[in-house]
Amino acid sequence: MKKSSYEGLQKTVRSLKTPAIEMWKNQYPERDYEVRIDIPEFTCICPKTGLPDFAAIVIRYIPDLSCIELKSLKYYTIYYRDIGIFNEHVINKMLDDLVRCCKPRWMELVGEFNARGGIKTTVRAEYQGQGLRGQGPGKCAR
Amino acid sequence: MKKSSYEGLQKTVRSLKTPAIEMWKNQYPERDYEVRIDIPEFTCICPKTGLPDFAAIVIRYIPDLSCIELKSLKYYTIYYRDIGIFNEHVINKMLDDLVRCCKPRWMELVGEFNARGGIKTTVRAEYQGQGLRGQGPGKCAR
Amino acid sequence: MKKSSYEGLQKTVRSLKTPAIEMWKNQYPERDYEVRIDIPEFTCICPKTGLPDFAAIVIRYIPDLSCIELKSLKYYTIYYRDIGIFNEHVINKMLDDLVRCCKPRWMELVGEFNARGGIKTTVRAEYQGQGLRGQGPGKCAR
Amino acid sequence: MKKSSYEGLQKTVRSLKTPAIEMWKNQYPERDYEVRIDIPEFTCICPKTGLPDFAAIVIRYIPDLSCIELKSLKYYTIYYRDIGIFNEHVINKMLDDLVRCCKPRWMELVGEFNARGGIKTTVRAEYQGQGLRGQGPGKCAR
Amino acid sequence: MKKSSYEGLQKTVRSLKTPAIEMWKNQYPERDYEVRIDIPEFTCICPKTGLPDFAAIVIRYIPDLSCIELKSLKYYTIYYRDIGIFNEHVINKMLDDLVRCCKPRWMELVGEFNARGGIKTTVRAEYQGQGLRGQGPGKCAR
Amino acid sequence: MKKSSYEGLQKTVRSLKTPAIEMWKNQYPERDYEVRIDIPEFTCICPKTGLPDFAAIVIRYIPDLSCIELKSLKYYTIYYRDIGIFNEHVINKMLDDLVRCCKPRWMELVGEFNARGGIKTTVRAEYQGQGLRGQGPGKCAR
Amino acid sequence: MKKSSYEGLQKTVRSLKTPAIEMWKNQYPERDYEVRIDIPEFTCICPKTGLPDFAAIVIRYIPDLSCIELKSLKYYTIYYRDIGIFNEHVINKMLDDLVRCCKPRWMELVGEFNARGGIKTTVRAEYQGQGLRGQGPGKCAR
Amino acid sequence: MKKSSYEGLQKTVRSLKTPAIEMWKNQYPERDYEVRIDIPEFTCICPKTGLPDFAAIVIRYIPDLSCIELKSLKYYTIYYRDIGIFNEHVINKMLDDLVRCCKPRWMELVGEFNARGGIKTTVRAEYQGQGLRGQGPGKCAR
Amino acid sequence: MKKSSYEGLQKTVRSLKTPAIEMWKNQYPERDYEVRIDIPEFTCICPKTGLPDFAAIVIRYIPDLSCIELKSLKYYTIYYRDIGIFNEHVINKMLDDLVRCCKPRWMELVGEFNARGGIKTTVRAEYQGQGLRGQGPGKCAR
Amino acid sequence: MKKSSYEGLQKTVRSLKTPAIEMWKNQYPERDYEVRIDIPEFTCICPKTGLPDFAAIVIRYIPDLSCIELKSLKYYTIYYRDIGIFNEHVINKMLDDLVRCCKPRWMELVGEFNARGGIKTTVRAEYQGQGLRGQGPGKCAR
Repeated sequence: MKKSSYEGLQKTVRSLKTPAIEMWKNQYPERDYEVRIDIPEFTCICPKTGLPDFAAIVIRYIPDLSCIELKSLKYYTIYYRDIGIFNEHVINKMLDDLVRCCKPRWMELVGEFNARGGIKTTVRAEYQGQGLRGQGPGKCAR
Repeated sequence: MKKSSYEGLQKTVRSLKTPAIEMWKNQYPERDYEVRIDIPEFTCICPKTGLPDFAAIVIRYIPDLSCIELKSLKYYTIYYRDIGIFNEHVINKMLDDLVRCCKPRWMELVGEFNARGGIKTTVRAEYQGQGLRGQGPGKCAR
Repeated sequence: MKKSSYEGLQKTVRSLKTPAIEMWKNQYPERDYEVRIDIPEFTCICPKTGLPDFAAIVIRYIPDLSCIELKSLKYYTIYYRDIGIFNEHVINKMLDDLVRCCKPRWMELVGEFNARGGIKTTVRAEYQGQGLRGQGPGKCAR
Repeated sequence: MKKSSYEGLQKTVRSLKTPAIEMWKNQYPERDYEVRIDIPEFTCICPKTGLPDFAAIVIRYIPDLSCIELKSLKYYTIYYRDIGIFNEHVINKMLDDLVRCCKPRWMELVGEFNARGGIKTTVRAEYQGQGLRGQGPGKCAR
Repeated sequence: MKKSSYEGLQKTVRSLKTPAIEMWKNQYPERDYEVRIDIPEFTCICPKTGLPDFAAIVIRYIPDLSCIELKSLKYYTIYYRDIGIFNEHVINKMLDDLVRCCKPRWMELVGEFNARGGIKTTVRAEYQGQGLRGQGPGKCAR
Repeated sequence: MKKSSYEGLQKTVRSLKTPAIEMWKNQYPERDYEVRIDIPEFTCICPKTGLPDFAAIVIRYIPDLSCIELKSLKYYTIYYRDIGIFNEHVINKMLDDLVRCCKPRWMELVGEFNARGGIKTTVRAEYQGQGLRGQGPGKCAR
Repeated sequence: MKKSSYEGLQKTVRSLKTPAIEMWKNQYPERDYEVRIDIPEFTCICPKTGLPDFAAIVIRYIPDLSCIELKSLKYYTIYYRDIGIFNEHVINKMLDDLVRCCKPRWMELVGEFNARGGIKTTVRAEYQGQGLRGQGPGKCAR
Repeated sequence: MKKSSYEGLQKTVRSLKTPAIEMWKNQYPERDYEVRIDIPEFTCICPKTGLPDFAAIVIRYIPDLSCIELKSLKYYTIYYRDIGIFNEHVINKMLDDLVRCCKPRWMELVGEFNARGGIKTTVRAEYQGQGLRGQGPGKCAR
Repeated sequence: MKKSSYEGLQKTVRSLKTPAIEMWKNQYPERDYEVRIDIPEFTCICPKTGLPDFAAIVIRYIPDLSCIELKSLKYYTIYYRDIGIFNEHVINKMLDDLVRCCKPRWMELVGEFNARGGIKTTVRAEYQGQGLRGQGPGKCAR
Repeated sequence: MKKSSYEGLQKTVRSLKTPAIEMWKNQYPERDYEVRIDIPEFTCICPKTGLPDFAAIVIRYIPDLSCIELKSLKYYTIYYRDIGIFNEHVINKMLDDLVRCCKPRWMELVGEFNARGGIKTTVRAEYQGQGLRGQGPGKCAR
C-alpha cells in the first residue's frame, strides 16, 4: 500500500456512513448507574493487508435519558465486517457514533485486537459528558 | 413484540409487586462493616423472546440498623423466575427494593448476565445513604 | 428455630467467652508495616440449622507494640468449631477480640463463607486505631 | 416430603411427557464424527425442597442418520424449568429421550449440578448403539 | 503420642461405629451410569496432634439397585468432625461403609487432605463389585 | 427460513467450490510426526439467521508426502467469511478438502463454535488414512 | 566480565544508534485516548554472560499528533536481538527513543524479563509530557 | 568443576548415607489403594555451581504391609538441603531409599525442578513391585 | 523453646551480620522509574521448630544513584538458608539492609511465606525516602 | 521468496551443521526413567519473511547409557537464533541430532510456535529406540 492511499484511508474515517443504533428510554434517569456491554466477536478488515482483524470490544456507559438497544448495536458492529479500518480508528469512530446516538453521562470503549506479527494492540477512549447529576464518572471505574 | 407493549413493560417495572425481604437487627451498628452476598443462580425471562435469561448477581452493603435475612432474599430472587424483565431493570428494581427494606448506609448491586447473540451485559447500580457515621462508603470498595 | 431464641443468640455474641490470644513484642515499632494472616480452614456451626459452616478468613493489620502469636491464634479459631454463630457476628466478634489483645494501628478482617442454598456471604470489617505515627492505614490497602 | 410421595416421584420419571426434539438429516453418515453440545444454563426444581436446582449439561454423540436441531433442544431443556425431578433422573430421562429421537451410534450425557449443603453432584450416563460402522465409540473420548 | 497408643488407634478403625447412610431405589438399574459426589468441606481430628484436619472428598460410583441419599451422607461425614483418625484410614473406612450400604457395581473414593508441615496427602481407594451387567467399571474413568 | 431451503442448503455443502490449499514437500516422510494448527479466528454465516458465527478450529495431522502451506490455508478459511453453512458441515467439508489436498496418514479436525442462545456446539471429525508405516494414528493423541 | 568494561557498557547505552520508528498522523488529536501495545517476543543479549535474555514488553501512551507505526516498531525491537544491554537500560533507552519519535502526551513502558538464577526482574518507566489538554495521564491507568 | 570430580560425584550417589524413613503398619493390606504425597518445598545444592536448587516432588505408591510415616519423610527430605546432587540422581536415589524402606506394590516419583538458565527439568521414575494381589499398578495412574 | 530465648532471638535480629549487597551506578537518575525483583525461592529456618520455612519475596524500588546488583543479592538471600528468624523479622531486616546499601527514593518488600499448620503469613514493609525529585512513590503502585 | 529457493532451503535442513551436544554417563541404566526438559525460550528465523519466530520446546526421553548435559543443550538451541528454518524442520532436525548424540531408549519432541497471522503451529515427533529393557516407552506417557 502506498503512503498516499494510507493517508487517504485515515482522513475518510470520520465521514464513514455507519448504520444507526436504536435507543430505548431509560426508566431510572434519577440514578447514575453503569451498563457494560461485552462484544467478544468483533471483526473488520486490516486496510494494509486486506486480511481480517479480530477484536473483543467493551462498552461501558452511564445512561442519561437513553439506553443502547442491543440488537441494533449487534447490526452496527457487523457493519465493520467488510470495512478496511485501523484499530485506533475503530474505537474512536464507534465512540463518536455511540455518544451521538445515546448522549450518555459518561462512556468508555476498549478494543483488544488479536496479535499480528507477535504484537497485540489495545485502544481505550473515553467520553466525559456534561451535566452530570451529582456523581462523577470516576465512580464507575472498577 | 410490538413497540407499544415494549414501552409498556418498561413503565410497569417500578410498580411490580415483589415479595418482602426480611431483616434482622444489626448487633454491631457502631461499626461501618461491609456484607457481600453472591447469588450466582439468578434467572428471569427475557421480555422480548420469552426465553430464560441467566445472571450472577452480587449485593454489597454497609448495614445500618438491619441486616438482610438470606432465606427471604432467596425467595425474593426466585420470584423473578417467571417474570419478563430487562437486564437493566432487574438491577435497578432490586436495588430499590433492598434499600427500602434494609435502609443501609451504602449499597451496590452488580448483575452479570449471560451472553445472548454473542453480546454480554453487566449492570451496576449504587445507593449512597444519608447519615453515615464517620466513614464514607468509598472505604468499602475493593 | 423460633424468633425469640434467634434474637437471643444475637445478643449474646458480644459476651461470648473466647480464648485469649498471645502477643509477642514488635521489634520494628518505628515502622508502619503490614502483616497478613490467611486462615483458609475456619469452621463453626450455623445456629439456624446446627450444621457446620466453613470459611476462609484473612486478617491484615499494622502492629503497634505487639504482633499476633500464630499458635494461640490457631487455638482461638478452633474454639469456634463447636459454636453456633452467624457469619456477620464471627467477623465482628473476632475483630473486637483481636483489637483488644493486639492494639494494632490498623486492622481488617474478611471472612468468605462457603455457599449455602446457592448463596455465598462475605463479611469485611475494619478497625482504625488512634495515634498513627506519620502514616494512615490507607497506605496498606493493596 | 414423606417417603411415599418420594418413591412416587421416582417411579413417574419414566412416564414424564417431555416435548419432542426435532432432527435434521445428517449429510455425512459415512463418517463417525462427534458432536458436543454444552448447555450451561439448565434449571429444574428439587422435588424435596421445591427450590430451583441449577446444572451445566453436556451432550456428546456420534450421529447416524439424524442430527439434533438446537432450537427444539433448547425448548426441550426449558421444559424442566418447572418440573420437580432428581439429579440422577434428569440425566437418565434426557438420555432416553435423546436416544429415542436421534438414534445415534453413541451418546453420552453429563450433568454437573450446583452444590447444595456443600455437596455437589455430577451424573454421567452413556448409550452404546448397535451397528457401528467400523469404529467404536471409545475413539471419541477426549 | 507414644507408639503403643498409635498402633491402638490404627487397629480400632475398622470397628468404629459410624452412622448409617440411607439409600433410595435406583430407577435405571438396566444402565451402568456414574454418579460423582464432591464433598469439599470434610474435617476430622489428627490423632497425633489433636488438631483439626481438612479435606476434599470425591465419591464416584456406578449404582446397582440403590443410590446414596445425600442428606444422610452429609450427616455421615459430619460424624468424623470429632473423631481422631489418620488420612489413609478415613478413605478406606468410608469406602467400606459406603460399599456395605450401597452395594454398588463400582466405587472409588479420593480424599485430598490439606498440607501439614508443607506436605500434602491424597488417598485413593477403589472397589470393584461382582456381577457387572455387560460393562466393566473402567468405562467410567474420566 | 423454510424447511425446503434448509434441506437444500444441506445438500449443496458437498459441492461448495472452496479455494485450493497449497502443499509443500515433506522432508521427513520416513517418520510419523504430528502437526497441529490452531486457527482461533474462524468466522462464517449462520444460514438460519444470516448472522455471523465464530469458532476456533484445530487441525491435527500426520503428513505423508505433503505438508499444509499456512498462507493458502489462511485464505481457504477466509473463504467461509461470507458463506452460510452449518457448524457440523464446516468441519466435515474442511476435513474432506484437506484430506483431498494433503493426503495425510491421519487427520483430525475440531471446531469449537461460540455459544448461541446459551448453547455451545463443538464438532470433531477424524480421517484414518491407508498405508500407515509402522505406527497407528492413536499414538499421536495427547 | 571485568568491572571496567561493565561500567563502559552502561555509559554507552545512551549513545546506542537504534533504528528510527515511523509515525502516522493521529486523526483524533482532540481526544486523550490510550493505545496499549503488547510485545511478548522481545529478546536481547545479557552483557555479563553473552547469553540471550527474553522479555515481554508493554507500551502504553496517549498520542498527541502522532501514532506509532507497528511494523517499524517491530523492526526497532528486533534491533536489540544482537545487542548486549542490561534490563534496566532496555526500558529507559526504549522510552527515550519512543518519546523522541512520538512526542506523546503520556507514555509508560514495562518490561518483564524471564527469570535468571531463580530471580525475575521487571522494569517500569513513565514519561509525563507537557501541554496536556484538559486531562491528566492518571486517567489512563487501569 | 572438572570432569573427573563431576564423574566422581555421580558415582558416589548410590552410596550416599541418607536418614532412615519410618513406616507404620498398613491396616488395609487386602486392598490395592494409592497414596499420593506432595512435597512442594524440596531444596538441595547444584553440584556444578554450589547454588541451591528447588523442586516440587510427588510420591505415589500402593502400600503392601507398610505406609510411609510423614514426619520422618520430612526429615529425610531436609537431609538433601546441604547435599550437592544432580536432579536426575535425587529422584532415582529417593526411589531406591523409599522402595527399600516401604516395600510397596508400586511406586512412582516425579521431581519438577525450578528453571535454571531458562531451562526446566522434570524427572519421573517408577518401581514395579512383585507379587501384586489381583490388580496391576496401571490401575492407579490418573 | 523457652520464652527467654524467644525474646532473645527477637532482639538480636537487628545486629545480625548479613553479607553486603553490591550496587551499580544508575544511568538514568533524572527519571523516577521502578524496578521489581521477584525471588520465589527464599528459604530460612523457623526459630521455634528448627524446620525450614519457604517464601516468595518481592522487592520494588525507585533507584536514586544506585541499582541493586542481582548476583550479590542472590548470595545475600542464600545467607538466610541456615538462619533461624521469624517471618516478620526477615522482611524488616532485609528492608533495612537494602535501604542502607541502595539508598533508593522509595522501596517496598513483600514476603509471602508458605502455610504452617494451615495458616499462611504475608509481611509487607515500605520505605519512603527523602529528597524525591518531582514525583511521589505512590505513582509506582500498580 | 521464490519457489526454487524455498525448496532449496528445505532440502538443506538435513545437512545443517549444528553444534555437538555433550552427554554424561547415566548412573541408573537398569531403570527406565523419564527426563523432561522444558525450553520456553527458543527463537529462530522464519525463512519466508526473515523475521524471528518464537517457540516453547519440550524434550522427553528415557535415557539408556547417556543423559543430556543441559549447558551444551542450551548452546545447541541458541545456534538456531540466526538460522532460517521452518517450524516442522526444527523439531525433526533437533530430534535427529539428539537421538544421534544421546541414543535414548525413547524420545519425544514438541515445539509450540507462537501464532503468525492468527495461526499457531505445534509439531510433535517421536523416536522409538531398539532394545528396550523390559518396559515399552508407552509407559512414560502422562
